[in-house]
Amino acid sequence: MLMKNKLIVDLKKELPCVLDTLEERYAYSQDASNIRRITNLPDAVVFVETVEDVQKVVKIANKHKVPIICRGAGTNVVGSCVCEHGGIILNFSKMNKIREISAENMTAIVEPGVVLGDFQKEAEKLGLFYPPDPSNLAVSTIGGSIAQSSGGAKSFKYGTTKDYIIDLKVVMANGEILHTGANTIKNATGYNLGTLFVGSEGTLGIVVEATLKLIPLPESKKVFTAYFDTVADAVYAVNAVIEQRIFPATIDFMDKNAVQTVEKFYPAGLLTDKEALLLIEIDGFECSMDYQENIIINVLKSCRASAIQASHNDEEYNKIWTARRSSMGACARLKPNVTTDDVIVPRKNLAELVLGIRAICEKYNLDVCMVGHVGDGSVHPQIPIDYNDEDEYKRYKLAKSEIYDLTAKLGGILSGEHGIGLEKRAHIHKVINSTALNYMRQIKKTFDPNNILNPYKIF
Amino acid sequence: MLMKNKLIVDLKKELPCVLDTLEERYAYSQDASNIRRITNLPDAVVFVETVEDVQKVVKIANKHKVPIICRGAGTNVVGSCVCEHGGIILNFSKMNKIREISAENMTAIVEPGVVLGDFQKEAEKLGLFYPPDPSNLAVSTIGGSIAQSSGGAKSFKYGTTKDYIIDLKVVMANGEILHTGANTIKNATGYNLGTLFVGSEGTLGIVVEATLKLIPLPESKKVFTAYFDTVADAVYAVNAVIEQRIFPATIDFMDKNAVQTVEKFYPAGLLTDKEALLLIEIDGFECSMDYQENIIINVLKSCRASAIQASHNDEEYNKIWTARRSSMGACARLKPNVTTDDVIVPRKNLAELVLGIRAICEKYNLDVCMVGHVGDGSVHPQIPIDYNDEDEYKRYKLAKSEIYDLTAKLGGILSGEHGIGLEKRAHIHKVINSTALNYMRQIKKTFDPNNILNPYKIF
Repeated sequence: MLMKNKLIVDLKKELPCVLDTLEERYAYSQDASNIRRITNLPDAVVFVETVEDVQKVVKIANKHKVPIICRGAGTNVVGSCVCEHGGIILNFSKMNKIREISAENMTAIVEPGVVLGDFQKEAEKLGLFYPPDPSNLAVSTIGGSIAQSSGGAKSFKYGTTKDYIIDLKVVMANGEILHTGANTIKNATGYNLGTLFVGSEGTLGIVVEATLKLIPLPESKKVFTAYFDTVADAVYAVNAVIEQRIFPATIDFMDKNAVQTVEKFYPAGLLTDKEALLLIEIDGFECSMDYQENIIINVLKSCRASAIQASHNDEEYNKIWTARRSSMGACARLKPNVTTDDVIVPRKNLAELVLGIRAICEKYNLDVCMVGHVGDGSVHPQIPIDYNDEDEYKRYKLAKSEIYDLTAKLGGILSGEHGIGLEKRAHIHKVINSTALNYMRQIKKTFDPNNILNPYKIF
Repeated sequence: MLMKNKLIVDLKKELPCVLDTLEERYAYSQDASNIRRITNLPDAVVFVETVEDVQKVVKIANKHKVPIICRGAGTNVVGSCVCEHGGIILNFSKMNKIREISAENMTAIVEPGVVLGDFQKEAEKLGLFYPPDPSNLAVSTIGGSIAQSSGGAKSFKYGTTKDYIIDLKVVMANGEILHTGANTIKNATGYNLGTLFVGSEGTLGIVVEATLKLIPLPESKKVFTAYFDTVADAVYAVNAVIEQRIFPATIDFMDKNAVQTVEKFYPAGLLTDKEALLLIEIDGFECSMDYQENIIINVLKSCRASAIQASHNDEEYNKIWTARRSSMGACARLKPNVTTDDVIVPRKNLAELVLGIRAICEKYNLDVCMVGHVGDGSVHPQIPIDYNDEDEYKRYKLAKSEIYDLTAKLGGILSGEHGIGLEKRAHIHKVINSTALNYMRQIKKTFDPNNILNPYKIF
């Protein structure tokens, strides 16, 4: 306790805003994962405003040998921001300046606390586009999206966060400042250190500035909905669309349970009696929209789709996506808690994964609503659950373990865009062999020899 | 010498094809960089055919403590395949099978010796597209493009090799087999080990299989040419095109010297009295071509371009690109040798870089033809030179050093798509700070503690 007091004294002496009351520490004991460690609260929460602030915290953390856990908006769903054994929460919400958006370079320089959706809107004002779009982008931060390797619906065409990071400024565990690249859109100069930090969940260094690549904003967009009698038919239709050399921005799906749950709480006029709803978004020049629409509708018809519809204005477009994004919220109304996941397999195995997850959940008497990015082969099984129901929680854990086994069997991987955090670390060996895990651990040791940066995460 | 004999005996006992005559070793003493170490020839050249062959060579190399230098087609221009102090050349030309191209997954699995252009053609037969297109793609290999982080003309829209690598199978320095990812197009499961190998020039591990991401092949393409009185005008025109939310696949340029040299040896009807020739390639749906063409031509006119032309058929399209790609060959006819480079800066500084390189070359009495990817901010200064002319070689080295200083001053980096190899390692500190270099060295040490994988390269 005396040690902890000295830590707080040091932090308060050096930093402008330090929270350390029990209530404040309790408020920061969880993120969007539902994991809560009430027996291991953070020791303090520090709001950093400058790179120098971050360096000061690193120095103090090294002195007192306490962990540092970076936090943007705390929206991650795998416990990456949870303190497993105390530590300092580094809150980046005040380090949120967009330093530059350059149309001439098609790049931007931002601080980690910048909210993703806000940044996208600023870029759009210049006709530029930053594609990563996790569903929480209205609140989640650029720093968090780098830490978790965020994707989103548009990853199918546009890739994920790692494809848009061209330079990172990072405070390392020893306080040194590392620059991983340059403000150039290509780089073959030495090792790709930047990408190593993307998805590393704050375990290798503290990102204090990011230089991002932007692309021209497509002129138009339109979304199509179509229903299928089987998940396999829906996946087949995806292949048929791509065979026509159409490259949709997004190919998402909702299973029957997801559609029914959304319609129960947020009615949007979706059909509730079909096994799978496909959502296909196209973008590009306005002059290509009719051409793409004709092909897509014909292909969907030939793939036995029913009730095929296209959005003809912003209202219709937003209605469809609001329904899709309401799935998690709707599920949350079924039980006190809801969890999501982001297992991913080669697309040809996606129908088998979806049916397998449903069977596993039935076996363990759990509800499950499935949405996902079918183009990517990615599924978000959303499971409503009462964490205080010990029996249900036990069944849930067993079901999750089986879902990961199945994913591994189908050639997939545990996370496509959420990260591993605390939630899945016990299962990572199912998809990453011991050789790779060993090199990851060695990299961690090289970058953070005292293990002060977000320890106990990933592996 | 006795040790070397034992090495050869061990290799010949275990491997199907080992070359070790003086002539053979001499033939493998260089790559496309013009660096030749006739005092340090490779000890042997081994043609590997299987993963097990590679593991056998690694075991023998560890036993005898000799370096392993991987080689695809040897087309790299920075000396990455040159033996600085002897060693075993691992020739991958026989490990060249395309294992799978899956339209259902939009992925492919290939061996490292597959020729890039051949692979692209196979993918195109299925309506799929693998965008990285270094100018030597008719001979260069996938393995080489991973080692050097190859880009090409289409990087502007489609990114470089690292954006298409989703899984690598790697034989590590200790013979272990590492899998870096999975056959999924997204992955947020642990550290991005795969990207670490891209551009690592064979210094971290030996890639024996790659899983690549593919995208739908665009329906149509067209190239525009336009001339400008200044390089700055040409760069300005690029911004003006992008402001119209056009996303060209390629925005390349040739300076007056490059155009004149091409016209001298391979006449293509290019205008030789203008400072800069811009080449803009668009792609997409056939129905969008006229729309894009109208916008581009109007924008180019408003940017003071002259002699604006569009390709209207394959013949015209190929003629323009053949002229652009002939630049290096044309330069090679001016002197016994020709060198190229790939410095890159933020695009807004590109005109300053081009003019600066020209001034530096004039100062040192050297010819220079400049082509490059203006969209990316990347320049290839091609310098004809006689390596046997000691005075000229000295002036060349001084000019190169100043070009790198200028690149660093303009916020750029030494290589956008060729790598560092032996050619630029003495200059890497100009653009990468000591902290980053130190972490790169530590990663190298972690992955290859005995320093047997392509030592003396990069840093």
